[in-house]
Amino acid sequence: MAADAVEETLDGLGLVDHHCHGAATRALDPEGFASLLTEGEAWPDASPFDTPAGIAVRRHCAPLLDLPRHAPAAVYLARRAELGPAEVNRRFLRASRVGTFCVDTGHAPHRVTTPAELAAASGAETYEVVRLEAVAEAVAAGGVEADAYGEAFRAAVWKAVRRPGVVGVKSVAAYRTGLDLDPSWPGQAEVTEAAGRWLARGGRLDDPVLVRHLLWTAVDLGLPLQLHTGFGDGDLRLHRSDPALLTDWLRLTAGTVPVLLLHCWPYQRQAAYLSVVFERVYLDVGLTLHHVGPARAGAVLAEALEITPFRKLLYSSDAYGPAEFHHLGALAFRRGLAGLLRERVEADDLSPADAVRIARWTGRDNARRVYRLPGESTDDG
Amino acid sequence: MAADAVEETLDGLGLVDHHCHGAATRALDPEGFASLLTEGEAWPDASPFDTPAGIAVRRHCAPLLDLPRHAPAAVYLARRAELGPAEVNRRFLRASRVGTFCVDTGHAPHRVTTPAELAAASGAETYEVVRLEAVAEAVAAGGVEADAYGEAFRAAVWKAVRRPGVVGVKSVAAYRTGLDLDPSWPGQAEVTEAAGRWLARGGRLDDPVLVRHLLWTAVDLGLPLQLHTGFGDGDLRLHRSDPALLTDWLRLTAGTVPVLLLHCWPYQRQAAYLSVVFERVYLDVGLTLHHVGPARAGAVLAEALEITPFRKLLYSSDAYGPAEFHHLGALAFRRGLAGLLRERVEADDLSPADAVRIARWTGRDNARRVYRLPGESTDDG
Amino acid sequence: MAADAVEETLDGLGLVDHHCHGAATRALDPEGFASLLTEGEAWPDASPFDTPAGIAVRRHCAPLLDLPRHAPAAVYLARRAELGPAEVNRRFLRASRVGTFCVDTGHAPHRVTTPAELAAASGAETYEVVRLEAVAEAVAAGGVEADAYGEAFRAAVWKAVRRPGVVGVKSVAAYRTGLDLDPSWPGQAEVTEAAGRWLARGGRLDDPVLVRHLLWTAVDLGLPLQLHTGFGDGDLRLHRSDPALLTDWLRLTAGTVPVLLLHCWPYQRQAAYLSVVFERVYLDVGLTLHHVGPARAGAVLAEALEITPFRKLLYSSDAYGPAEFHHLGALAFRRGLAGLLRERVEADDLSPADAVRIARWTGRDNARRVYRLPGESTDDG
Repeated sequence: MAADAVEETLDGLGLVDHHCHGAATRALDPEGFASLLTEGEAWPDASPFDTPAGIAVRRHCAPLLDLPRHAPAAVYLARRAELGPAEVNRRFLRASRVGTFCVDTGHAPHRVTTPAELAAASGAETYEVVRLEAVAEAVAAGGVEADAYGEAFRAAVWKAVRRPGVVGVKSVAAYRTGLDLDPSWPGQAEVTEAAGRWLARGGRLDDPVLVRHLLWTAVDLGLPLQLHTGFGDGDLRLHRSDPALLTDWLRLTAGTVPVLLLHCWPYQRQAAYLSVVFERVYLDVGLTLHHVGPARAGAVLAEALEITPFRKLLYSSDAYGPAEFHHLGALAFRRGLAGLLRERVEADDLSPADAVRIARWTGRDNARRVYRLPGESTDDG
Repeated sequence: MAADAVEETLDGLGLVDHHCHGAATRALDPEGFASLLTEGEAWPDASPFDTPAGIAVRRHCAPLLDLPRHAPAAVYLARRAELGPAEVNRRFLRASRVGTFCVDTGHAPHRVTTPAELAAASGAETYEVVRLEAVAEAVAAGGVEADAYGEAFRAAVWKAVRRPGVVGVKSVAAYRTGLDLDPSWPGQAEVTEAAGRWLARGGRLDDPVLVRHLLWTAVDLGLPLQLHTGFGDGDLRLHRSDPALLTDWLRLTAGTVPVLLLHCWPYQRQAAYLSVVFERVYLDVGLTLHHVGPARAGAVLAEALEITPFRKLLYSSDAYGPAEFHHLGALAFRRGLAGLLRERVEADDLSPADAVRIARWTGRDNARRVYRLPGESTDDG
Repeated sequence: MAADAVEETLDGLGLVDHHCHGAATRALDPEGFASLLTEGEAWPDASPFDTPAGIAVRRHCAPLLDLPRHAPAAVYLARRAELGPAEVNRRFLRASRVGTFCVDTGHAPHRVTTPAELAAASGAETYEVVRLEAVAEAVAAGGVEADAYGEAFRAAVWKAVRRPGVVGVKSVAAYRTGLDLDPSWPGQAEVTEAAGRWLARGGRLDDPVLVRHLLWTAVDLGLPLQLHTGFGDGDLRLHRSDPALLTDWLRLTAGTVPVLLLHCWPYQRQAAYLSVVFERVYLDVGLTLHHVGPARAGAVLAEALEITPFRKLLYSSDAYGPAEFHHLGALAFRRGLAGLLRERVEADDLSPADAVRIARWTGRDNARRVYRLPGESTDDG
């Protein structure tokens, strides 16, 4: 009875998905859908459905398309095509019961929903997260002298974050240079020299000096800063995305802005350590949740929560493209967290009231507080 | 009922053990057997039986020697000696129900079975895997000028892999230099200079340039390349065997040969990530399975399978010496995998038919496909 | 029935807590107590009770203060204040049923019990562990010339360890430089030069040459050497405390003194590997046990024991300050270990007799043997 309260709380909670992307708005052909199912390359002789994520889609998403559980991939794709992207998105986004999406708008190689479109399709509130590398690259694309780059970037970022609905910024420094960066603030001369090299060469922002400059510029904004760490696509060197590598930089910037370590897997314990020792460090296991699926989400969350203060874990899906992932992330989070809290309540290691508070905090209220989102919170802790 | 199908499938499956060594053919005295039970040094004041592997031997191997479960170590050793190595090997190798062994023949400080002897004792088919460092060291031992080394090594490797029954090659670069290698192809001048130093000095191949040359030479062969990563004996620096350190080299060689990450523990999640983002990267948790024993194999497999595509995990034992390990590896794999698949089927997170496919693929068919072994596969995925 | 024997053994066992600190002897105000509940900074807008450790205190410590389980934090603090530190310490220390504490006396920013006071409060035997960095800093504070530092430190350490009751030494090299040290013995000239720099600059010992000198000096003492690895407070770079980084130094010093890897989390598997391949390397998961709490201690212990020889795991609490942690560590160890051993006995993967031996060894006898403590041991293995 008491343990059921946790499941009921999580089921009824309008989650805050504090880091996601848009849902694909155009019809995805089978190859297109399959390629978005994984973070990797296509495997010529294996189906992307033959993954934990693919199994989870067939099990947990098929019924929302009026199909039996575990429907075959081909049947799933045909039904998906039949319904069309608008209806598919509507179904999954509403089924997720997410109350608020914070949308990273800086990564969209496919046509995906804008925050306004996502709000309309889901019935949820949406906010925007500005991807800093995209701002820097737009500054470069717009034409700028090397010695004006630093200030131009700063001005562009300030302008970007002043737009209505922007609640945070994000960096993918982990992809561009790795997190084993010189932590110190780069001076103007160093920035100018690096900008000269980069602007002459072109391409994406991957100069270590300019990435440091970007991170330090973020600190001045006063907004929550999301940092990609751990798991991602094949463009990454995983061992250089261990969030522990940020320690010296977090020490230098302690007391400034909230830092949200995204994804983290397989370094969720390292991220948890940082959330303990740095006042303003938070973490999630987004992206991982739908890749491991509901069957394994509890195990990953259990590691992420081993030592983590309960005000420091947030929910995110990091869904991009198929709206299945906006749904699966929420489902995996709800089920995984409910399972581990229920087990502790049943063993009398946790009181039902505490379990309910932990569910509300991690699923919704921690994000509301960090991003200063509207809505009543259960801050009775 | 449906969940039982997984156990039945795994029980009846002629596994492919895609990486193992021979079984000891001479009688092992108690000290000799004990020393082969662990990857470490002898502990003067503790028995090697007082380990998870030792417990597993006494529990799961004693009955095959007509002893009660959990027989004392001394009783076990006496009975083993009484039966003699041929009978002991026969019993364990047949009990493993392995259909195919791929045997690394390049590491044999003890007298162990040849692939032909292993086939005779087990009733299984056997193939050979050529250890590249052994070929390089034979070239050096045979006498070669520094400027001829590169070509001589290449010729020797090509000759070695053209022998009948050879299905792949293996490198222990992780032991020799660590995996944090310069990923680039070394030019002829660099190889000649390094060969000059190495040939003058002698000893095993541990020059970083020559190890890179060895890996790049392997890429040209077109055969599956096994790489030691993670767990091994005391000759290793574990943190330099993290497979994620191979990322840049995998990127440079993508689309060439299948790369099989062996062992991986405790970096099985890092290996899983690589198997997602690189089309031709595969993994196993061999060696670990019998060291952790059947009681813990499921937990390790669950991590190894968290995000891994089901066509990317293979079975291996990495058994060397006592045939107990050829058996225990198979037992731990079967029981660990059956347990986790059964749990998911019972929770309706996985259909019984999918569970059976995953069991067949990981236990047999993935290896058949990668190594192009004969036999029908269930490639209906 | 048979499985119950493990719980009974662990419940009745006078544990050896081979690494802890003193209990706070002065009344802790709510802020003071709260700050000692975590390894991190205060979080201005969150209670340190909202952590796994805080939940465990309210659940498992409240009853010892005559409060209901899960008592609110404010009630807990009020009752704690009412009873006063002497009574609180007495209750928790006796409830821990620890038979022997080995106390690191070199870290005491608060007023905590001396070993003699801890013995009186707990009824246990106590021994002392000398923190080497504290000795070095006392030598510097006492005034010494750079060229006399090496010998003065050596003499001071020898004097410190000859005091009655000293059973080991400890280094926090992981905090000062990280464990990625040059492993080689530093010569006299190098030490003199480094001492000159350090003595001129002052502050804590964090010069890499002098830290190496400290470690090599420890090797000559012949006493067990405790090394901080993994988890700790915010003064750490976690990724540089991976015990695998010690590999080369362990190889150079193999066969000298027992090396005890403390804490280890999240690198418990790396530590386990070292305990397999180095004859005299041991590990514990102290500190982690009370931070994860009894609900999760079994999962951490299961990883720590995956491949670890059963004579190589020890128990420690690493408790400092609140005596709650001396109790919670012991409780988490007993319950976590009993749970995993019971599960294996019930699955017939482990005999009840072996389970009992493993419980006695890891909870008491391994420490007795390593530190040559008095008391009968169950060395019938």
